[in-house]
Amino acid sequence: MRKGDATKARILAEAGRLAAVNGLFNTSLNDVAERCGLSKSGLFKHFDSKEAMQESVVMDACDRFVDFVWAPVQHLPAGRSRLEAIFERQLDWETVENAAGGCLIMSSAVELDDRPGPLRDKLHDRLQQWRRILTREMMALTDPPLDYETAKMAAFEMNSFLLGHANAGRFMRDGDAREAARAAFRRLLDRTAKPG
Amino acid sequence: MRKGDATKARILAEAGRLAAVNGLFNTSLNDVAERCGLSKSGLFKHFDSKEAMQESVVMDACDRFVDFVWAPVQHLPAGRSRLEAIFERQLDWETVENAAGGCLIMSSAVELDDRPGPLRDKLHDRLQQWRRILTREMMALTDPPLDYETAKMAAFEMNSFLLGHANAGRFMRDGDAREAARAAFRRLLDRTAKPG
Repeated sequence: MRKGDATKARILAEAGRLAAVNGLFNTSLNDVAERCGLSKSGLFKHFDSKEAMQESVVMDACDRFVDFVWAPVQHLPAGRSRLEAIFERQLDWETVENAAGGCLIMSSAVELDDRPGPLRDKLHDRLQQWRRILTREMMALTDPPLDYETAKMAAFEMNSFLLGHANAGRFMRDGDAREAARAAFRRLLDRTAKPG
Repeated sequence: MRKGDATKARILAEAGRLAAVNGLFNTSLNDVAERCGLSKSGLFKHFDSKEAMQESVVMDACDRFVDFVWAPVQHLPAGRSRLEAIFERQLDWETVENAAGGCLIMSSAVELDDRPGPLRDKLHDRLQQWRRILTREMMALTDPPLDYETAKMAAFEMNSFLLGHANAGRFMRDGDAREAARAAFRRLLDRTAKPG
């Protein structure tokens, strides 16, 4: 890694941490420069605007999410055990990997929901892609595969339990948030695999 | 309503709208004064700090939530039809009542999750109170009442579907977000009422 790349990676990491705690739109270039011990002009060598930094920070979080959640499970055969592994990795993403400030992707989606523009569009595309993956994974829960609509609905419920977990764990500080989400997800898989 | 009260109500309404779109911590006293056509000193007559304004805005949103969701359903007998009515009112709260900027309570919970302090504590208490109400409502789904743990778990799932609805509808712009949430909630009530 060249020195410039290493600096950029450090800036991204610090900016991501600040944005996760204080909000993406509440994190200025000055805040990030100060945290990194750089002058504002030093920071400008890497990002020439707040918008450019925001985009890099959010896209970097999406890349890290894929590395964290998907990379360790992709060798498993599609089906229930991979779905359970994905769910556990997403719980860990929220509580372990992002213990300090929560999931920047989720908080950015809330911040961006009423701010149309290229960053919103890019995050939307990444999340849409992830939802397609989850729907495909749900289809592989049974043999023959689940129909698309049933799988999409199950993916909606799966995502809801992850959001419920983040809310219960991070804001409400429920000690049993993880167990509640996990139990809800297990029952979802049970009834989706054996309908009727 | 006295003139001062009317002005304060107008400031709260405008500040709430700005905070829902731009974020609670990204809304300055200057922004609110400008939107209301007041000088900053005019605004200071009503709120002497950004923190005081934030607290009033969030508590006002909680009061409006109770008026909007609870007031129209409280005359119904406890049980399935009241639970369904509460769920519908919460969907409407997100999409109709707060069409412009989404639910300020939910976005504030995300903004406040890693900002300890009195405002976080107050919002936490209000949300805890609402969750106790939902758990109690779930207990009344059956006769004899559901046990507390089962009802609490069902309330977790109910809340998760509402968060899933907000995410799918507001950020992902899914046309079928409402129908997905409603279908998930109906199935939750079916299986909670008839376990096994």
